[in-house]
Amino acid sequence: MERLFITEKISTLLPKIKEFVVNELYPLETTENLTHHFSYIEPVLQQKRALVKKAGLWGLHLPEKEGGLELSLCEFGQISEILAMTPFGHFVFNTQAPDIGNTELMHKYAPKHLKDQYLKPLMDGAIRSCFSMTEPEFAGSNPTRMGTMAIKDGDDYVINGHKWFTSSADGAAFAIVMAVTNPDAAPHKRASQILVPTDTPGFKLVRNIPIMGHAGDSWASHAEVTYENVRVPQANLIGVEGAGFLLAQERLGPGRIHHCMRFIGIAERSFELMCRYAVSREMEEGVVLGEKQFIQGFIAESRAEIDAARLLVLRTAKNIDEQGAANVRDEISMIKFFTANMMLRVIDRAIQTHGALGMTNDILLSHWYSHERAARIYDGADEVHKTALARGILKDYGLDVRKGK
Amino acid sequence: MERLFITEKISTLLPKIKEFVVNELYPLETTENLTHHFSYIEPVLQQKRALVKKAGLWGLHLPEKEGGLELSLCEFGQISEILAMTPFGHFVFNTQAPDIGNTELMHKYAPKHLKDQYLKPLMDGAIRSCFSMTEPEFAGSNPTRMGTMAIKDGDDYVINGHKWFTSSADGAAFAIVMAVTNPDAAPHKRASQILVPTDTPGFKLVRNIPIMGHAGDSWASHAEVTYENVRVPQANLIGVEGAGFLLAQERLGPGRIHHCMRFIGIAERSFELMCRYAVSREMEEGVVLGEKQFIQGFIAESRAEIDAARLLVLRTAKNIDEQGAANVRDEISMIKFFTANMMLRVIDRAIQTHGALGMTNDILLSHWYSHERAARIYDGADEVHKTALARGILKDYGLDVRKGK
Amino acid sequence: MERLFITEKISTLLPKIKEFVVNELYPLETTENLTHHFSYIEPVLQQKRALVKKAGLWGLHLPEKEGGLELSLCEFGQISEILAMTPFGHFVFNTQAPDIGNTELMHKYAPKHLKDQYLKPLMDGAIRSCFSMTEPEFAGSNPTRMGTMAIKDGDDYVINGHKWFTSSADGAAFAIVMAVTNPDAAPHKRASQILVPTDTPGFKLVRNIPIMGHAGDSWASHAEVTYENVRVPQANLIGVEGAGFLLAQERLGPGRIHHCMRFIGIAERSFELMCRYAVSREMEEGVVLGEKQFIQGFIAESRAEIDAARLLVLRTAKNIDEQGAANVRDEISMIKFFTANMMLRVIDRAIQTHGALGMTNDILLSHWYSHERAARIYDGADEVHKTALARGILKDYGLDVRKGK
Amino acid sequence: MERLFITEKISTLLPKIKEFVVNELYPLETTENLTHHFSYIEPVLQQKRALVKKAGLWGLHLPEKEGGLELSLCEFGQISEILAMTPFGHFVFNTQAPDIGNTELMHKYAPKHLKDQYLKPLMDGAIRSCFSMTEPEFAGSNPTRMGTMAIKDGDDYVINGHKWFTSSADGAAFAIVMAVTNPDAAPHKRASQILVPTDTPGFKLVRNIPIMGHAGDSWASHAEVTYENVRVPQANLIGVEGAGFLLAQERLGPGRIHHCMRFIGIAERSFELMCRYAVSREMEEGVVLGEKQFIQGFIAESRAEIDAARLLVLRTAKNIDEQGAANVRDEISMIKFFTANMMLRVIDRAIQTHGALGMTNDILLSHWYSHERAARIYDGADEVHKTALARGILKDYGLDVRKGK
Repeated sequence: MERLFITEKISTLLPKIKEFVVNELYPLETTENLTHHFSYIEPVLQQKRALVKKAGLWGLHLPEKEGGLELSLCEFGQISEILAMTPFGHFVFNTQAPDIGNTELMHKYAPKHLKDQYLKPLMDGAIRSCFSMTEPEFAGSNPTRMGTMAIKDGDDYVINGHKWFTSSADGAAFAIVMAVTNPDAAPHKRASQILVPTDTPGFKLVRNIPIMGHAGDSWASHAEVTYENVRVPQANLIGVEGAGFLLAQERLGPGRIHHCMRFIGIAERSFELMCRYAVSREMEEGVVLGEKQFIQGFIAESRAEIDAARLLVLRTAKNIDEQGAANVRDEISMIKFFTANMMLRVIDRAIQTHGALGMTNDILLSHWYSHERAARIYDGADEVHKTALARGILKDYGLDVRKGK
Repeated sequence: MERLFITEKISTLLPKIKEFVVNELYPLETTENLTHHFSYIEPVLQQKRALVKKAGLWGLHLPEKEGGLELSLCEFGQISEILAMTPFGHFVFNTQAPDIGNTELMHKYAPKHLKDQYLKPLMDGAIRSCFSMTEPEFAGSNPTRMGTMAIKDGDDYVINGHKWFTSSADGAAFAIVMAVTNPDAAPHKRASQILVPTDTPGFKLVRNIPIMGHAGDSWASHAEVTYENVRVPQANLIGVEGAGFLLAQERLGPGRIHHCMRFIGIAERSFELMCRYAVSREMEEGVVLGEKQFIQGFIAESRAEIDAARLLVLRTAKNIDEQGAANVRDEISMIKFFTANMMLRVIDRAIQTHGALGMTNDILLSHWYSHERAARIYDGADEVHKTALARGILKDYGLDVRKGK
Repeated sequence: MERLFITEKISTLLPKIKEFVVNELYPLETTENLTHHFSYIEPVLQQKRALVKKAGLWGLHLPEKEGGLELSLCEFGQISEILAMTPFGHFVFNTQAPDIGNTELMHKYAPKHLKDQYLKPLMDGAIRSCFSMTEPEFAGSNPTRMGTMAIKDGDDYVINGHKWFTSSADGAAFAIVMAVTNPDAAPHKRASQILVPTDTPGFKLVRNIPIMGHAGDSWASHAEVTYENVRVPQANLIGVEGAGFLLAQERLGPGRIHHCMRFIGIAERSFELMCRYAVSREMEEGVVLGEKQFIQGFIAESRAEIDAARLLVLRTAKNIDEQGAANVRDEISMIKFFTANMMLRVIDRAIQTHGALGMTNDILLSHWYSHERAARIYDGADEVHKTALARGILKDYGLDVRKGK
Repeated sequence: MERLFITEKISTLLPKIKEFVVNELYPLETTENLTHHFSYIEPVLQQKRALVKKAGLWGLHLPEKEGGLELSLCEFGQISEILAMTPFGHFVFNTQAPDIGNTELMHKYAPKHLKDQYLKPLMDGAIRSCFSMTEPEFAGSNPTRMGTMAIKDGDDYVINGHKWFTSSADGAAFAIVMAVTNPDAAPHKRASQILVPTDTPGFKLVRNIPIMGHAGDSWASHAEVTYENVRVPQANLIGVEGAGFLLAQERLGPGRIHHCMRFIGIAERSFELMCRYAVSREMEEGVVLGEKQFIQGFIAESRAEIDAARLLVLRTAKNIDEQGAANVRDEISMIKFFTANMMLRVIDRAIQTHGALGMTNDILLSHWYSHERAARIYDGADEVHKTALARGILKDYGLDVRKGK
């Protein structure tokens, strides 16, 4: 916790949530639960969701009129960190990606009938959703290149396309799909976001993509999806036609705060595990790991790096709250690569400290080591964010770096 | 391939093996095979073993009288690199750990009856074996601390103990177990190596330990094993009583060359995958990844680091060949941490180059990213080898660093 | 500037100081001034000091009753950053080490007669001072080991000892010397701080130590000093007898904030130089450096690292202001190594961006590259701070790491 | 020394040279000599040159007919390493840059009259020379952009231009100047190399450029030079007209081996100093630096990195010997950045180990820290070599990376 950013709203909330996480969720981190598919543990997590509701902690991220606390991004970020300290936290609090992003988006831009039919049960945790943007044929760092088309036909859109990394599609009630609706418009105004129920004919979940050896399932999966003549009413449009990229951009600002605070929560927990092991693992008669300078180095560097990253992210969240995401784009790029790399270094040191145990599912770390490697890739690879940040800076020095160099 | 170390014996052999690996084994690297348990692909690999035999490439690592080529460590290392370029290479050539180590050991130290009964089918690939040393209760970096006991009773040993990371125990015909036979001897002379058939009553494979989310099976597994009153004849002793550590040490010298050359093969293949993708993946109209300086940096640094590591390892192999492992202990420590870290950096860059694809089992890299993280831990963690190397060096400067500081 | 920490007091002050620094001091950064000894430029700097006084910017760091602004550490830190953007800033504002530390110390602990005679002219910039603690024979990381003795004789102390890195002794009016006065006390209560006028017989400036090729002179020097039967009145004691380490510790808390904010100012200016050069240096027809990804990487990483370090340091300063240095010792260790390393990386990247020019005194960077390398050594080497931080952390996990391991 | 590359010719020579260096030159590394300008120590070094001649060690790098040993590049590289272990080694053996490069060049390409008049006394050590290529106005990484012109006028060239980093011009008898003679030819065929005696009217040494605070003098200097209507006979042409870049390229292949082996010598000596200090510096009662894991880490990593770099460079030298520089261009790029960075890391760790002492001229390290930073810049910056290497590699994968991207 960082005193600088604590507000009255969250000062009592944070310890309460931490307590819930520690008491109710840490015990679920068994070897079995960390080895099996998500659906194995899902029923237990649903029970925990009931406990969250009972404890009055459900929907904290929502607007007041939806029963939430109308938290600022900076406030929710601090909650997000705590929830991320266990792999089950965000799901149990119904603040998991991509649902939280879809929730935010639909609140602002979905027409009433979609809110009634889809947003409400989503907020209740009764259904799940997915976001279908990335395509295998096109590099993710250039979102204006896209092959999926939505052609108007009568009152409908007819959608054809090929997506992957449509995360959590397995079991989702609906997808929000990015598709080109206006192919002749300027590159950034060609696509729209359209809600597609997953039971629509032609929507096909080809496979849950095996990642680091696991296909995963349910919420913890990343699907390859094809759209073959998928027909949905034009009324399923989110926002206006051609606003797809604008909405995606708007989603990504807060989305990166969510990700980064999640990274920090993971790093913080990894740090905790490292320290606990350092004080308890005997290397030789009467000498524990923590007495070794190499391990002390791991601990000291990790502590400094986590604290620095947290300050950077919460500053950015505060600036978004006060100035809007569009005005702090450079900062948003900055935190993404800085925090993702920090997290992976801390996880790596924690594993190294644990030795062979660190490789196993008897402890959390290997789960994060493999699955969180993606943090340096999705939502803009390191290289993309570094280039974007540098371009933003150099513009102030008078250089207009032409894109792509 | 490194011209400096090519000998006549291997100059025609290496391209032949490379060709086999490329033509017969690369096609097996499908998403399915990289996602399923090892037993799924195993029958196919057995067929490939037959092809190896047919091609006259079986048992190259063995002494001449066993039908091998009497290769030096430096020569075999170069073969090992090529076999490591695919996850199936060493298994198909029957040079996989831990069997290759057990083979070497038994050749030198097993009594004839054990050779007849166990070594012969092991060399033929008819059975598999495992090596049971590491214990969860004791830090691996200090091998003289060990809880497993073998007590003499009549003509037998009765063994009790708890091991883990007994790799490939699942399906193995026998284990070679490290156990304390002489508890009152000097610390380094307490343990012995004893052959235990896995069907001996009291030998229990508790579980294949889930690692990075996978329990694995068959050869590709790491077992937790308990020994409860396991009774074997004293004639199952390998070498002499109390020589357990000495033999383990002798095993580890060449063993580290094997590992390091494997790391280099993995790095080399990852490099190849990175380059192929760099020249083919379009980032924007007409511009491929390889035209970006960030990617060029990955490629240049990887090339230099792989070459440097290979030279270092082959030099060490040559020095072991000429001077014996005991005389190049510092070099052996040096290559272990240097090469393991190099490999992991190269894999990491290759993944980053592939973006989202790099996370998936559609390509080899994530398999290695997760499973090879252990390279910085097993057979001596980085920290152990660095400390050992520094102590060796400082001794020449007149300092006797007391162990454990 | 970091909006989070701006207060009303400094919000108008910072731009005013920045303007002074840019207009009056940047023009002094000529090749000549960066090549010659400090005494060459010193007369000009004295004129600039007059301008500072005229502009009402003198003594900002002092308490209100001394004409200062009673700034908090966090407020002054932000001024310190700006002054550090040129090598002449702190000297011109009379906030240079070690004088600022001696000023703070004497304000609190010097008896009135020393304040009248020494502190007043020090605050006026009429004299300079030095702090004489480090000894060549004893490792700096263990300050309780010290050879300099102050023996009572009548009303005097008679001091004998050998010091080095008594910075700015050349031309200083007095030294504050750490000497053992109570050899039989507990290790941390043996030494005292005593004011010694540099014209006292037996005080000998042996040499200005050549550092990175330069002996330096005047304020910009680091002296080796011997004390041979140096006799001063016991009334020259600062604070009470045996409080030497306590006072040194008290000095070091704020002192590290001063240093770290100075590091940040240097990094920020190096960053600025790097960006300016990146947008103006043509690599080939029509392509400037800033269009290259390698340079963009330097810029992006530097921006993130500087911002993160500044947040970390200002947070620590604020915590010292609110809780006292003794309660944030871990944070103080953290910022020292984190910020020093960050600065050196940024300087290094800025040099690399400048190519051959970066090596020359035609630009500031090489000055900082060579002289600021010491930042990772003085006031506690990286290794010392990392160890201290880890020990502090592990204590909370129940481990009392015995010192020195 | 690396057994793999020792030949009969050098097996007895290397220890002999090492002995000379240790006995005759190490004692010259006093604080004074490391602080003063080069001319201060130069007379002593001339005496040492006489000793070299007397010991029969002069001119080893020359062809047999010039009294040399006709050493291969790989053989001489190993001598070069030893000479580089002290800042005075190469000068005393007359193998210092840029004279050694000019010697090699003139042997092959200078007309007889220039050999008689200039090469002979150069080989004797009677005169010194310089190489005048780099221009402040054009980025060094693109050598085809050049402003210096040599216009034919009668039998002469009239040269006008502005150069800098004309190293060792101060006191040199002649310069070899790169100038455009054929402005209308293809970019790589525009320039020629012309010998210009430094007493030719119009040759003006503007200044020895201050670098890291020092202007330097004599051999140890880097001049800014202007050519104003400098008139020399066309007979002073080295090689043929328009061959300037080709000759420069030919010079750079072996030149990079020379540099890299020098880097390795410096790293090796820094390593030695680090180890010596580690075993002797007491940190606390009875505990020396070398017992600390942080220092052990420095030592172990440095040992591995030096050995790896040496193998890489000597392999490359051998390949140049056997295949010609043009065929191992990728390897040459590889060793340059790999070795320069390695050296700087080792120097940095050695300084850190020495603490405050490491900053001073009481020990060699700070000299190298500041002056060898240029190793990552001259003769192709890291970034240039990485890009070149990657382009070379990717060409084999079918990509022709257009220059400058």
